[in-house]
Amino acid sequence: MKTVPERLTALRSAMAKVGCDAYIMPSSDPHSSEYAPKHYTAWEYFSGFSCENANLVVAADEAALWVDGRFFGAADAALAGTGIASMHMGVKGVPTVNQWLKERMISGKVLGYSALTMSVKQMRELTELCKKNGAQLKDLPLVDEVWTEDRPALPATQAWILDTASAGKSPEQKLEILRGKLKEQNCTAMLVTKLDSVAWLLNLRAADVESTPYALAFCYVDMEKALLFVDASRLDAKTREILEKAGVELRDYMGMAEYLVSCKTPQTVLADPASLNAALMNILQNNSAYTVKELADPIALLKAVKNETEIACTRKAHLVDGAAMVRYQMELERRLAEGETLRETDIDPILHKYRSSGEKFIFESFSTIAAWGPNAAMMHYAPKVGADAQIQRHGFLLVDSGATYYDGTTDITRTYQVGDVTEEEKLAYTRVLRCHIDIAMAVWREGATGGELDMLARQPLWRHMLDYRCGTGHGVSHVGAVHEGPQSLRPHNAVVFVPGMVITDEPGLYEEGRMGIRIENELVCVEAGESEYGKFLRFEPLTYVPIDMGCVLLEELTREEKDWINWYHGQVLEKLSPLLNEEEIAWLRIKCAAV
Amino acid sequence: MKTVPERLTALRSAMAKVGCDAYIMPSSDPHSSEYAPKHYTAWEYFSGFSCENANLVVAADEAALWVDGRFFGAADAALAGTGIASMHMGVKGVPTVNQWLKERMISGKVLGYSALTMSVKQMRELTELCKKNGAQLKDLPLVDEVWTEDRPALPATQAWILDTASAGKSPEQKLEILRGKLKEQNCTAMLVTKLDSVAWLLNLRAADVESTPYALAFCYVDMEKALLFVDASRLDAKTREILEKAGVELRDYMGMAEYLVSCKTPQTVLADPASLNAALMNILQNNSAYTVKELADPIALLKAVKNETEIACTRKAHLVDGAAMVRYQMELERRLAEGETLRETDIDPILHKYRSSGEKFIFESFSTIAAWGPNAAMMHYAPKVGADAQIQRHGFLLVDSGATYYDGTTDITRTYQVGDVTEEEKLAYTRVLRCHIDIAMAVWREGATGGELDMLARQPLWRHMLDYRCGTGHGVSHVGAVHEGPQSLRPHNAVVFVPGMVITDEPGLYEEGRMGIRIENELVCVEAGESEYGKFLRFEPLTYVPIDMGCVLLEELTREEKDWINWYHGQVLEKLSPLLNEEEIAWLRIKCAAV
Repeated sequence: MKTVPERLTALRSAMAKVGCDAYIMPSSDPHSSEYAPKHYTAWEYFSGFSCENANLVVAADEAALWVDGRFFGAADAALAGTGIASMHMGVKGVPTVNQWLKERMISGKVLGYSALTMSVKQMRELTELCKKNGAQLKDLPLVDEVWTEDRPALPATQAWILDTASAGKSPEQKLEILRGKLKEQNCTAMLVTKLDSVAWLLNLRAADVESTPYALAFCYVDMEKALLFVDASRLDAKTREILEKAGVELRDYMGMAEYLVSCKTPQTVLADPASLNAALMNILQNNSAYTVKELADPIALLKAVKNETEIACTRKAHLVDGAAMVRYQMELERRLAEGETLRETDIDPILHKYRSSGEKFIFESFSTIAAWGPNAAMMHYAPKVGADAQIQRHGFLLVDSGATYYDGTTDITRTYQVGDVTEEEKLAYTRVLRCHIDIAMAVWREGATGGELDMLARQPLWRHMLDYRCGTGHGVSHVGAVHEGPQSLRPHNAVVFVPGMVITDEPGLYEEGRMGIRIENELVCVEAGESEYGKFLRFEPLTYVPIDMGCVLLEELTREEKDWINWYHGQVLEKLSPLLNEEEIAWLRIKCAAV
Repeated sequence: MKTVPERLTALRSAMAKVGCDAYIMPSSDPHSSEYAPKHYTAWEYFSGFSCENANLVVAADEAALWVDGRFFGAADAALAGTGIASMHMGVKGVPTVNQWLKERMISGKVLGYSALTMSVKQMRELTELCKKNGAQLKDLPLVDEVWTEDRPALPATQAWILDTASAGKSPEQKLEILRGKLKEQNCTAMLVTKLDSVAWLLNLRAADVESTPYALAFCYVDMEKALLFVDASRLDAKTREILEKAGVELRDYMGMAEYLVSCKTPQTVLADPASLNAALMNILQNNSAYTVKELADPIALLKAVKNETEIACTRKAHLVDGAAMVRYQMELERRLAEGETLRETDIDPILHKYRSSGEKFIFESFSTIAAWGPNAAMMHYAPKVGADAQIQRHGFLLVDSGATYYDGTTDITRTYQVGDVTEEEKLAYTRVLRCHIDIAMAVWREGATGGELDMLARQPLWRHMLDYRCGTGHGVSHVGAVHEGPQSLRPHNAVVFVPGMVITDEPGLYEEGRMGIRIENELVCVEAGESEYGKFLRFEPLTYVPIDMGCVLLEELTREEKDWINWYHGQVLEKLSPLLNEEEIAWLRIKCAAV
C-alpha cells in the first residue's frame, strides 16, 4: 500500500501530464453525501485523514486540507509530516479554500475537479473564482486514473424496504406527497440524488455507507413514473415486489446519465444546486426537453418533519437504547471499581454487547467516540486499538455513541467523572450542563429558527468567553443517517422549527490538550400549547439516560435548571424501569436521585 | 372642522369622480419617515387616529386601518363608530393589507395611491398584486384635493447644525465617508431622501416633526457636489456658512424632482427602494443619464454605529437625564405620599420641569406615556387632559419618556408600584425584569443578529406562554429620532450587532384591560473581550436610573440576575451621585440598596 507522499506524487504526476496546476477534492460523492462510500473518499486516500465537511487541494508544490472545528486537533496530528497543511475552517487569519485558491489560481492556471463528485453550487463558485482570475476550471478524472490500487469497489450491500409500521408511510404514499410538492412548485419531474432523500422516498435501506443504512441509488420521478437507478442484484424478491407495487421501475445505477440524455418528453425538472452533482446538471442543461428549476430538495423538509408513527417508533428505540446504556454504564463502573485497567477502545465492545442484544438492532449509527481526558478535546476522536489511551482515574471520560434500530436511530453523549476532577473541571462540566438544559427547557412562539434558538444554548459559556466550535445540535434521520438537515441548532441557521423535527442538544467544551466535555440528548420539537399570544413550541427529550451529576456545582444552576434535571431524571426512572431488572432499577434510582 | 365620517365622505366622492375603487394611505411622507410631519399624515386625518407603521385603505363602502401591536387597544377605541375596521397586524386570522386588497381589487378595479408618499417597495408590491388580479394601481393626488381645510402647512422650523463636538464628524468628513461607500458599491451618486439620513450626513437639525429634530430636506450627492433641497429661509447665516464650507449648495425643497429631470451627466445612482418614494424613482428611471443601482441606504448603518464622540456625549446626556429622573421620581413619591390626587397627565409636566432645567435640553424625544393600571396595556398610550385616569393607590404606573439634548437622545421606561399589587402582578413584573436583565447581561461571539439576541429576552415570558407583541428594542439616533434602524432586537432581524450600536432593552407584558409593565434602558454594544474562541461582544447600559425593586419576587431571579441588578444599582449610585444633592443621594441609596 502506498504512503500518503507516494499517493501525492502519483497525483501530481498525473496533474502535470494534463497541465493541471491544482486539483480539488471535496468530501463528497455523486450524491453530495456527508458520509460517502469508501469508493469515493479520494480526500481521505490522498491525505490519509478521515473526515467529513472537508476540501483537499493538491497543487504542484503544496497541498492543504480544510477541516472544521470537530477535526482540528486530529487533523493536525494526522497531517504532520505529510506536506499537507491542516487548515482550520472558520478561524480568524486562516484563508478559506476559495481565498486560498484565489491567490494561486492566477491567469493561465488550471484547477482540476471531478464534476461527478462536486455539487453544482461549489462548481459554480469555483467557476466564478477562476473566471475572475483568468484561470480555468476543468473536469478531470484524475482520481479514477491515480487511485486504482486498494480502491474499494462501489458498495452493493443487501437492500431492503423499511416497514410502513416504522416509516409511517409507504413508498406509494411518499411518491404522491412528492408529486404534490412538485406541482406546488410548478415542476413535473425531479432528480432525487441524495441517498437520504432516495431512502426516505422509497423507504429503501441498505448498508452501503459505514453506519448509514442507505443504498447507492438515484431516483427519477415525474408525474407518470418513478425510476430507481440501483444495482438491482442486491434487491431480493420481497423488495422488488414492494417497489413494483409502488410503480417504481428498476434501472442500472450508472444508467441515469444515459436516461437523462435520451429523454425526449418535455419536463420542468426540479434540481437542487446544493446537492445535484455538476455532471448531471450539465446533462439537464444540454437537453432541450428539460426546463430546469433550481429549488431546494423538497424531500429534505418532508423527511425532517417526522410523522407520528416515526416519532412513536423512535421513542421505543430510545428506551431500548437507554436500557442498553444503563447496563453498559453499570458494567463500566463495576470494572473500574474492581480496579481493572480499561482503555478507550474497551468501551465500544461493551456498548455493542448490550445494544446488539435486542432483535431490532441494525448497527451502530457511527463509530463510537470514547475519549479519556485530553483526547476528548478532539470532538470527533475515534480511538484506535494500539493507539488509544488508558482510562485513568481522574478527569472525564466522554462517550458519544448510538445505534440504528429498525424503529429509529439514536445518538447520545455522556461525560463521566472517572476519578478526581479539579474545581475548574467541575465548573466546565456544570456550564456545559447548563447549556444543555437551557435548550431542553426552551419554549418559543412558533416561527423561531435554529439560529435564534442556538443563542440560548451558549450563554452559560459565552458569558465567560468560552464556546464550542460547532453547532449545538443536528437533525437525525429516521432509521437513517445520524446527521440530517435542513434544521440545526447553529448560529444563523434560518430553518424554522416545526413540531416533528428531531434535533440533538449537544453543547460542549473542548480545551485542547486538557479536556473535552459534551452532554447530548436527542429531542423532538412538540407543541407547548396556545395562548392569546399565539402557538408555542418546545422540545421533549427522546433520550432517557441519566446525566452524571457527581461533579455538578449545584449552586451554579438556576432553580429552573435544577427543576428540569429533577423532572428529567424522574422521567428516566419512570420510562426505563419497565425494561430493567431490580438490580438495574436500584442502580438507576441512585443515578436519578433529586438534587 | 369636519368629522371623520365627513372626511371619508369627501374622499369617497373624489374617488368616485375619477373611478377609484379604493385608496391606500400608508403612514409615510416623501421621505419614508416613521414619524411624518403633520402636513402628510393623511391616514390620521381620514381615520382620526394617530399612529405609525400603519396603512389606511378607504373603499366605497368599507375602510380599514392596519395597526401594529402597540396600538391595538387604542385603535379599537378610537375607530369604534367611524366605520373603519381596526385591523390587528400579525394576529392570526386577520388578513394583511395586501391579502385584504387582493380579495377586493379584482379585475377592472382601480386602486389609488400617491407616488410621492409611498416607497418604491410598497408601490411594487401593490403593482404586482393589482397586475395578478387584472386591477390597476393609479397615482391619484386625492389627498391634496380633499384635505384642504385644516391641513397643516409644510413645516419650516429654524434649522441648525449639530456641533462636531457632539456629532464627532463634520459634514465634510461625512460626505467623504459617504462618497467612499458609494465607490465601494460602484456608484457615483445617491439620493439621500430619509430625513434622518440627511440629518446625519450634514449634521442638519430642526424641529419639523414633533419630537424629532429633523428638517424636511432632500440631498443629492455625487462625486463632485452635494445639493441640499430645503426651504432656505429657515437657515441662518452660521448654518449657511457651515454648509457652504462643506461644499453643499442650497436648492428649493420642491426642486429635487426638477433637478433630476434636467440632469444630463451620466451617473450610477444608488437608490434604496425601501425608502425612496415612487415618484422620484419614476424620474430616475425615465432619465437615460441615470443607471439606477438598488441598494440599501448606506447611511443607515453609518449612522447606527456611533463614533466615540457620539457615545461619550450620549453618556453625559443620560446622566443628566438620570438626575432629572431621580428628582421627578422623588417629587412623584412625595406628592403621592402626601395624599395628593394625581392624574396621568400630571406626570409629563414634572418630568419636563426637571429635564428642561439644564442648558442642553432641546425637547422631549416623544410624547410622554404615563399610564396607570389597565391603561398601560396600550403600549403607546398617550394620556390626554380630560380623558386621563387618576393614579390610584394600587397596581402599577408605567412612565415611558425621554428627551433630546444637544449631546444625545434618551428613552427610558420605568414601571412603579403605586400601592398594593397582587401576587400575579408581582410575578408579571418580576418576569419582565428578568427579560430585561437577560439582554442586559448577554455576551455573544461577534456575528450574532438582533433576531438571535431577541430570543434571550423572551424566555422568562415564553416559558409561561406569555409574550409582548413588539420588538424587545429599537435603535436610537444621536440627537435625533428615538427610533432608528437597521438594528433591532426583534425576531428574525438579520442585522449583526457591532460595537457602537445603541439599542433599547424594553421587554414588557401587556394584559388588555388589566395592566401593562415595561422596563426600558438604552444600551450600547461594546467589546467584551477576546479569547481563543474569538471576539465577544456585550451591551453596556447608557441609562442609569434605579429600577423599582419593591415588588420583585427575589426568589424568581437567578443568582446571575441578582448579581446584575446589584451591579447596575451600584453603577447608578456611583454615576448619578456627582449630579445630585445630599437629600437626593440619600434617596438614591435606598433605591439602589443591594437585594
